[in-house]
Amino acid sequence: MNYSSFFPENVKKALQNDPPGAWMSVLPKGCIRLNSGYPAPNLVPAQQIKAAVDALIKEEQDLPFHYIGSSRTASLPQQIQKRLATHGISVRQEELLVTSGACQGIDLIARSLLDEEAVVAVEAPTYMEALEIFKNYTNHIIDIPVDEDGLNTDHLEGMLEERKQAGLPMPRLLYTIPTFHNPTGTTMPLKRRKHMLKLAAAYDFLILEDAAYGELSFCEGVTPCKAIDEEGRVIYVGSLSKVIAPGMRVGWIAGAQELIAVFDWFKKDLGHPFSHATMTSYLEGNALEDRLHLLREVYQARCQTMLKALGEYLPAPITWHIPKGGYFIWVKTPGIDTQQLLEQALAIGVAYVPGKYFFLHQQEGTEYLRLSFSYAEEQDMVKGIRKLGELFASYYKK
Amino acid sequence: MNYSSFFPENVKKALQNDPPGAWMSVLPKGCIRLNSGYPAPNLVPAQQIKAAVDALIKEEQDLPFHYIGSSRTASLPQQIQKRLATHGISVRQEELLVTSGACQGIDLIARSLLDEEAVVAVEAPTYMEALEIFKNYTNHIIDIPVDEDGLNTDHLEGMLEERKQAGLPMPRLLYTIPTFHNPTGTTMPLKRRKHMLKLAAAYDFLILEDAAYGELSFCEGVTPCKAIDEEGRVIYVGSLSKVIAPGMRVGWIAGAQELIAVFDWFKKDLGHPFSHATMTSYLEGNALEDRLHLLREVYQARCQTMLKALGEYLPAPITWHIPKGGYFIWVKTPGIDTQQLLEQALAIGVAYVPGKYFFLHQQEGTEYLRLSFSYAEEQDMVKGIRKLGELFASYYKK
Repeated sequence: MNYSSFFPENVKKALQNDPPGAWMSVLPKGCIRLNSGYPAPNLVPAQQIKAAVDALIKEEQDLPFHYIGSSRTASLPQQIQKRLATHGISVRQEELLVTSGACQGIDLIARSLLDEEAVVAVEAPTYMEALEIFKNYTNHIIDIPVDEDGLNTDHLEGMLEERKQAGLPMPRLLYTIPTFHNPTGTTMPLKRRKHMLKLAAAYDFLILEDAAYGELSFCEGVTPCKAIDEEGRVIYVGSLSKVIAPGMRVGWIAGAQELIAVFDWFKKDLGHPFSHATMTSYLEGNALEDRLHLLREVYQARCQTMLKALGEYLPAPITWHIPKGGYFIWVKTPGIDTQQLLEQALAIGVAYVPGKYFFLHQQEGTEYLRLSFSYAEEQDMVKGIRKLGELFASYYKK
Repeated sequence: MNYSSFFPENVKKALQNDPPGAWMSVLPKGCIRLNSGYPAPNLVPAQQIKAAVDALIKEEQDLPFHYIGSSRTASLPQQIQKRLATHGISVRQEELLVTSGACQGIDLIARSLLDEEAVVAVEAPTYMEALEIFKNYTNHIIDIPVDEDGLNTDHLEGMLEERKQAGLPMPRLLYTIPTFHNPTGTTMPLKRRKHMLKLAAAYDFLILEDAAYGELSFCEGVTPCKAIDEEGRVIYVGSLSKVIAPGMRVGWIAGAQELIAVFDWFKKDLGHPFSHATMTSYLEGNALEDRLHLLREVYQARCQTMLKALGEYLPAPITWHIPKGGYFIWVKTPGIDTQQLLEQALAIGVAYVPGKYFFLHQQEGTEYLRLSFSYAEEQDMVKGIRKLGELFASYYKK
C-alpha cells in the first residue's frame, strides 16, 4: 500500500529534509567518540538517582506513578525556579513549563509560533536538531553569521533593515545559543545581548534563547538574555541533560505567561510524573551547586587536555576557537572537506561531526568540524586528536 | 506586550477550543472521584518498580541515564512486540514506535496525517482528549454514532456514500476505540470490525484504533482490528498506563513502517531512556500475564459493585450500559442536564464527567454522564452512587 496520499503537503515537505547524522548512532565499537555531545559517563549520578527513587517511593508510595497526586512531581517547577533565580531570571509558575529536555521545548515553540509563512532567523552555524525542527514548520529560514563573539548582531541589524526596506516579511523568531554556543563554543558579550534585545523591540520579533550549556562556565558567570529582557521578548529554554543526566529528559521553557499557556496547550505527552518526581527527589537530596562546581572543574580540565592535544598534533593551517564553557571546540580545516574525510577518520577509529550539519547552507560548513571534550575518556581523547592530526597532515602533504 | 500577532492562524483557531475538564484537577479534598479514569491506587506496583530500578542500576549503572547505551532502554520495543503477539498482532521493530502514553501517539498521528483540509471521523461520543487533539489540526471533524455495539458501521457506510455522492471531501482518518470504549464501555463485535475494515478499503481511509483499555477484559479476549488488518490500514495505539502505571508514560503506535517512520520524525522528545529502561526491567522481573489476571478480576468485581449500586440507588428513568471490560459505565439521565447538575453533585462530594465533553456536538451529550469504577474505593463508590441517586431522585420529584 502507498501511504503518500495520506500525508498533507507540509508534512511531505518536511520529510524531504535529510535526517542529520544517522551514522552517529551506529559507530563501530571502540571508536573514539569526539562527536558525542553527551556528559561524561562517570559524571552521571546513577547511584544518587537510585537513592532518590528509594527515598521517593518510601515517602510517596504509589503517588508518583499516577497522572497526578505526587507532591514531588508537582514541585519540580519550584526547583527549576530556584535554579533560574541564581542566574538572575525571575519567573512565576505560570511562566514556566517543564518539558522533555530542551528539544521538546524548541519543538513546542516552533509548533506554536511558526507556520509556512513565518520567517525564522537562526545562527550560522547552529544546533542541528533545532534547524531540523524549524524545517518541519517553515521553508523561510534565514541565517546570521556567528563570529568569535557569537551571533554578529551588526549583521543581524543589517539584514533586518534590508528586509524592511525591501518590504520582505520580517522574522517572527530568532533562535540563538548565546552562551557556550553549539557548535562553536562562543559566548555573546553583554553588549551584543543588549543590542539583540534592542533589535527585537525595534523590529518586533521574539528571541528563543537556548541555554542548554549555560551552567557549564569555566570562568565568571554569564548573564542570560532572559535576565535582561524587560519587554518579555525572550523565550528561554534550559535543561538538566548536560548537568545531571540526559536520560531523565528534564528541560523547561521560561517565558511570558501568554506564550507558556500556548506551548502547554500543544504538549500532548501529559507530563512525566515518575521521572519528574525522581528528579525533584534527587534535587532535594543533593546540592546541585556543589555538583556544578565539580562539573565545571572536570570539563574545564578536559577542555584544557583537548586544547593541548590540538596544539600538539594538528598541522599548521588548522585553527580552533577556545571556549569559555560548554562541551565543544570548533575547528577550522582550510582546504579539507570534513564530510569527505569522515570515512577515513572512522576507519582509523575516530568520530567527529562534520561542520556542514550545523549550517542552513551546508556548503558553508565544509571546512569545519565539531569536537566534543565531554564524553570520551581523556587518554582516548588525546589519542583521537593525535590520529586526526596524522590524517590531516597526510592530507596536506598530498 | 501583546503576543497574539506572533501566533499563526491555525494556532489561533486551535486556541479557541475550550480546554475540557480543567475543573477535574481541582476537586475538593474528600470528593468521591467517580470521574477519574485512573487505575486503582493499590494496584499500582510501586514497590516492584522500585525493585526494577534497583536491579536496573545494579546491572547497567549509568547507561539508562544517557541518551543511548542501555540495552534495556533499547529492548522495550521487544517487550511490547511480545505483548502484541498475544493479541494476534505481529509487527516488526520498524512497525513500532514507543510513545509517552497513548495521548502522544494520537497527537503524532494527527500531526502527521491531518492539516486544515483533512477530514477526520470520530465516534459520538469519544475520548475527549483525542477530540481536542484533532481540533488542533483541523475543523473538518465528522462524527458517527456509537450504539450498544460500539461504532455503528452502517451509519458510517451511509455517511461515506452520501459524501461521495455529494462530492464532499472524504475522511482521511477514522478514530475509534473498538474495545471497552471510552466513555460508553461498548465493544464492537467482530462482524462490525470487518465491515469497518472493508469500508476503509472501499473509501480509502486509515483507521486509528485506540486500544488503551484493550487488556482489561472481563470475559474472553477480543480480536483487535489490527490483528485482522490485511491491507495495513490500521494504526494501533496502546499503552501501559491502565495496566501498570500512567506515571511511567509508556505507550506505543503499531502500524505500517512507512507511517511509523513519519511519526518518529515528528517525535521531538528524544525518547525517555530511564523510564523506558525501568519499564523493561519491571517487565523482565514480573509476569505481566499474572498481573493482568489480577487486574481483570479486581476491575470486574469493582464493576459489579458499581452496577449493583446503580440498580439499587438510581431512580427509574435512568439507564446504563453494562461493559465487558475497561474502566467506565455510561449512564443516560433522561431529562437531566448533567453539566448543570454537576455543581450540586460536587457540593455533596461526588464527581462524574458530564457527557457533553465526549461529543463533537456537545448538546448531544447533555443527558449522559460517565462513571469510572477503576479509581475510587469500593465503599466510597457505593456511597457516591447512593448520593447521586438521591440527587437525581430529588430532581425528578421537582
